[in-house]
Amino acid sequence: METLKKHRCFDGQLGFYKHDSEVNNAPMTFAVYMPPQAKKKRVPVLFYLSGLTCTEENFMAKAGAQQYAAKHGIALVSMDTSPRDLGLPGEEDSYDFGAGAGFYVNATEQPWARYYQMYDYVVDELPALIFEHFRIDKDRVSIFGHSMGGHGALVIALRNPGKYRSVSAFSPIVAPMHNDWGTKAFSGYLGDNKETWKQYDTCELVKETNSNIPLFVDQGMKDEFLTDYLQPERLEAVCQEQNHPLTLRKHNGYDHSYYFISTFMEDHIDYHADLLLA
Amino acid sequence: METLKKHRCFDGQLGFYKHDSEVNNAPMTFAVYMPPQAKKKRVPVLFYLSGLTCTEENFMAKAGAQQYAAKHGIALVSMDTSPRDLGLPGEEDSYDFGAGAGFYVNATEQPWARYYQMYDYVVDELPALIFEHFRIDKDRVSIFGHSMGGHGALVIALRNPGKYRSVSAFSPIVAPMHNDWGTKAFSGYLGDNKETWKQYDTCELVKETNSNIPLFVDQGMKDEFLTDYLQPERLEAVCQEQNHPLTLRKHNGYDHSYYFISTFMEDHIDYHADLLLA
Repeated sequence: METLKKHRCFDGQLGFYKHDSEVNNAPMTFAVYMPPQAKKKRVPVLFYLSGLTCTEENFMAKAGAQQYAAKHGIALVSMDTSPRDLGLPGEEDSYDFGAGAGFYVNATEQPWARYYQMYDYVVDELPALIFEHFRIDKDRVSIFGHSMGGHGALVIALRNPGKYRSVSAFSPIVAPMHNDWGTKAFSGYLGDNKETWKQYDTCELVKETNSNIPLFVDQGMKDEFLTDYLQPERLEAVCQEQNHPLTLRKHNGYDHSYYFISTFMEDHIDYHADLLLA
Repeated sequence: METLKKHRCFDGQLGFYKHDSEVNNAPMTFAVYMPPQAKKKRVPVLFYLSGLTCTEENFMAKAGAQQYAAKHGIALVSMDTSPRDLGLPGEEDSYDFGAGAGFYVNATEQPWARYYQMYDYVVDELPALIFEHFRIDKDRVSIFGHSMGGHGALVIALRNPGKYRSVSAFSPIVAPMHNDWGTKAFSGYLGDNKETWKQYDTCELVKETNSNIPLFVDQGMKDEFLTDYLQPERLEAVCQEQNHPLTLRKHNGYDHSYYFISTFMEDHIDYHADLLLA
């Protein structure tokens, strides 16, 4: 694990790192914010999954989360949204497939299958690395994300009952099987059998899961992707039908940007802190 | 004045704009955050001047200032650090001269003199435009900045007694006549007569000014530019010698980045709010 840079921030330490991922067969980058409380004891950790095109840096630079993590004594981890610079055909051709668009799936279609194992990376490999190198309480882990990363966080929490204390999302893609982002990604990474897609679709998982983990979701109502890509009404409907606990807040006038995310970041960190520190 | 984009943020409105600057003979871009209180009344305004390479966006995206501006009911204004894309010789050759490096001076050397009038732009033209188009109380104006922008804020406040209620700076270049950034910029924009440089050098101005405005400065002690470019000891010495009010806080472990700025942003906005709202 190589340290790329370090910054003091809100009396804690923010580091950017690079390592050779085994599951992805490629170098991966990630960032860890350790709050000041970690100088003296193990702290809980909150993983953040970013949206399309992002690296681990967008969240750390723009979301304004460190101040709240420092207040509660919670570590933050963000990671790149895919391996990069592999020279794969089409890797850089579009913002919504290939580099920067791993969609948090384990790809089964070549050439992606060899390198794009982002589900296993986020669920297993990266946490193990974090637990090894940082003063983290591995029994206190939560997850959240934005857009493609909101999709990732909800899918991962629903598929791993008991692993995460809490989950939340900003503007998540809750039904990727039903929009162009999702169908492009899933057909490219997973092939044409839609049965295999269901394990990465939040609305489908709510029907199947044994987890009863509450879903906390914030959505801007002026989000430019609301109708065609985010479709929160699908999540509302399936959670009501399945009696799955959902808090969906709709915020008038807010869009898809980090200006929206930063506005409600304190609410999300407070929400996770309540459950992580209980 | 053209609106480039708008985002709701902390219940206020953040806009990015473009206009044809008369003093700069070129298009300029800037950003304005109007807090929720401005829906009902005129609000004070705090101008922020950015450092080398920055546009108006860095501050709005990374500094985390909007939450505190929203709490106090203060507007925020940031602007690009120079005109851009003029096709001038050498305009893009270095990060510390030309585009992104206007240094908040009125250039007297050609070809810069025709386009780089950033002092007049920040002191006069931009405020007049802001007062015309936004619900601002023009009697309640303060200014702050970072690095090259900290230099700009201190210089502008010292040279305009009574115009600003308060001034503060993160990691300012307090003695540009005595380091490579400043001498490169000043010789290029202002020519070789060092007497004319003094009007843009905070430490020189503290000797000459009629203003007694207190200077509030935060400096990270792990700042990579501390010794060679920022030299806060020069400001300490001259303020002590001249009995000019200075609060200089030295923060161990902090560097030159927005992770440092965001950490102490609340203190700065609180400081300005006390004086703007008095």
